[in-house]
Amino acid sequence: MNATLRADADAIITAAIRAVQPDEAVARALAHADFPGRVLLVAAGKAAWQMARAACDCLGKRIEQGVVCTKYGHVMGPIPRIHCYEGGHPVPDEQSFRATAAALSLVEGLTAQDTVLFLLSGGGSALFEKPLVSGAELQDITGQLLASGADIVEINTIRKRLSAVKGGRFAQLCSPARVFSIVLSDILGDPLDMIASGPACPDSSTCAQAQAIANRYGLRMSDEARTLLTQETPKTLSNVTTQITGSVRELCAAAAKTCRELGYEPLLLTDQLCCQAREAGSFLASAVRTHARSGKSLALLAGGETVVKLTGHGLGGRNQELALAAAAGIAGISGAAVFSVGSDGTDGPTDAAGGYVDGSTAALLASHGLTIEQMLADNDAYHALQKTGGLIMTGPTGTNVNDVAVALIRGEA
Amino acid sequence: MNATLRADADAIITAAIRAVQPDEAVARALAHADFPGRVLLVAAGKAAWQMARAACDCLGKRIEQGVVCTKYGHVMGPIPRIHCYEGGHPVPDEQSFRATAAALSLVEGLTAQDTVLFLLSGGGSALFEKPLVSGAELQDITGQLLASGADIVEINTIRKRLSAVKGGRFAQLCSPARVFSIVLSDILGDPLDMIASGPACPDSSTCAQAQAIANRYGLRMSDEARTLLTQETPKTLSNVTTQITGSVRELCAAAAKTCRELGYEPLLLTDQLCCQAREAGSFLASAVRTHARSGKSLALLAGGETVVKLTGHGLGGRNQELALAAAAGIAGISGAAVFSVGSDGTDGPTDAAGGYVDGSTAALLASHGLTIEQMLADNDAYHALQKTGGLIMTGPTGTNVNDVAVALIRGEA
Repeated sequence: MNATLRADADAIITAAIRAVQPDEAVARALAHADFPGRVLLVAAGKAAWQMARAACDCLGKRIEQGVVCTKYGHVMGPIPRIHCYEGGHPVPDEQSFRATAAALSLVEGLTAQDTVLFLLSGGGSALFEKPLVSGAELQDITGQLLASGADIVEINTIRKRLSAVKGGRFAQLCSPARVFSIVLSDILGDPLDMIASGPACPDSSTCAQAQAIANRYGLRMSDEARTLLTQETPKTLSNVTTQITGSVRELCAAAAKTCRELGYEPLLLTDQLCCQAREAGSFLASAVRTHARSGKSLALLAGGETVVKLTGHGLGGRNQELALAAAAGIAGISGAAVFSVGSDGTDGPTDAAGGYVDGSTAALLASHGLTIEQMLADNDAYHALQKTGGLIMTGPTGTNVNDVAVALIRGEA
Repeated sequence: MNATLRADADAIITAAIRAVQPDEAVARALAHADFPGRVLLVAAGKAAWQMARAACDCLGKRIEQGVVCTKYGHVMGPIPRIHCYEGGHPVPDEQSFRATAAALSLVEGLTAQDTVLFLLSGGGSALFEKPLVSGAELQDITGQLLASGADIVEINTIRKRLSAVKGGRFAQLCSPARVFSIVLSDILGDPLDMIASGPACPDSSTCAQAQAIANRYGLRMSDEARTLLTQETPKTLSNVTTQITGSVRELCAAAAKTCRELGYEPLLLTDQLCCQAREAGSFLASAVRTHARSGKSLALLAGGETVVKLTGHGLGGRNQELALAAAAGIAGISGAAVFSVGSDGTDGPTDAAGGYVDGSTAALLASHGLTIEQMLADNDAYHALQKTGGLIMTGPTGTNVNDVAVALIRGEA
């Protein structure tokens, strides 16, 4: 293994993950914020507790009171003036509804001078919910949609209308108070109305679409629910300011910044990667082969979230698979490495965050009597990278804003 | 369809394919060549006739005599002082051997002042051959190798040793004359000893490797053939000068140059793309989504040769499939297009050279009641692109140096 490249990779990974930690991300978003009146905090999602604590660290007693709605096991301790609730995820339960009810009481009767500091992260769709139908019917309709192959956009179009808080309705309830929304984005391209079904985001879907979906899939529902599909969600929300933070874009930006500090010219290819993991690895390796002879030091970055096609029974994750696939394409090239890491620190069902390979990986694996082809066919990137010292271990990071893959090319200066 | 982007795409394709035509490529390679003594021409491969005619156009009577060894139907007319032969491809036949014998007589008895102008293109492995075993045994051994799953490097390692001209041996036979070799490369990364099994290229494979391969696959062969595996090929060739031309690198360079002339900043991602066609399309679309909001006019180029996984029974080719897959990822984005084209003008078993898509393609297809997903599942990119006006038709181009895919992003200036 190339020790210099590996050290560079580790430095890039550390800086990138640090930049998208909920606390750093919230602090950045609040750096220039100014609130005239009362400030009430509502935090929802899997990172709600961290985001709330970071906001309290920044604003101290300016935050009068608050409610955290997060997942079981995600409250890490008390936060002054903040009520912390835990609830069900991915399926909401009575505790989720109780937490949401507490948040809704908190924002009742505010004035136009007041601000609701709304901290949203992934998982908020289940953890922040007040259904307008019974919990049982909500679950039944969601189940019908999933079973009939509806996509996530279609599911959300229906669910927003069965909810008192989704599709911009939470922000509407806060009115006339201002909503300062900080969103920790875990969806590629940051589609705001998709993240937790957009409680503080104008809804782009329409009643007509919702009814078309209900007809298309022949959804069985109560008359009450059918009436709800005809009630429009807000299309504009003049009281909301939104800051997207800690997204894969910031993950890539922080990685690129560190690449530059280490002497590589960074080039962001995409922050919306979504193809097959091993094919992305092949693509990056092709780029390395082309640019390795340029003499320049380059870092090619691709952020996003790839997918793995399971064909074997080995251990791995999409980042490890991407790296291992790239190893075949850069075999024998000195001064080049490819690595990929998940910002949550857990790649697939493994204790690794991702994988690192360089020009020596294929030969190192061969010296153990293994081939890249065979390990990929068995989806066993973990054990391949374990043998070549290519596992990246960070431990759980407390955030999840997708992955970043980097191809490093160290030119002969 | 975006007419401006489509016109830009057509201009880029025309210029790129023009630059790698055998005649342009040979003329470029001969531009600064200077030959002191007699010049004899030997041209082998599917583009041999075009390359020979281009060389004669450049050098006129300086070429004393020549032999063209090409495929049946590929001689387009007489060339003064050049004997044109046609033979079997991909399986060599007696006519191939006869043509090669004529070339070998031509280069007998030359002096160190003389030059063999050796013009090589794809297909030369079959069209330029003098087997050292019987044609029947050569075919039998090749068949055994293919049946046992040997890769192309292994097959060539064996075949070079069963040939009087492969693996650098042709250049050895020309000695002491100089060999000026112009290679029209159709293999990614231009591995010279792979193109037509490198008649004028030092051989990097060894007898030890050849024997190991014969043992690994339990090849059945005559004692005579077994002895040939122990006879080493030349490892250096001091009499050879090689110019690689008309390669995918020149295809990409010409495309990039035209992009720049049209106002796009070109960025060559790779000239050695080899991943799955639809995944490459997805990758390029991801890059478009990231850069479409930058305001800059960019052209991202990826040259190489992708592969298609057949899952359906439709009509298409790797370039059409790449483009159609990209259409899903750039749907709705204005001012962006992705196209991919094969330099030979025939993509898969179709009359199209490739495919073009832009932000309107998905909607256009939907208006015909079709989805990208369904057409890709059936590998039916041809009929999808036919409906959206996205087929690129060039007709056969007379050359084959892989493909180039381009993502165009037109920023609002």
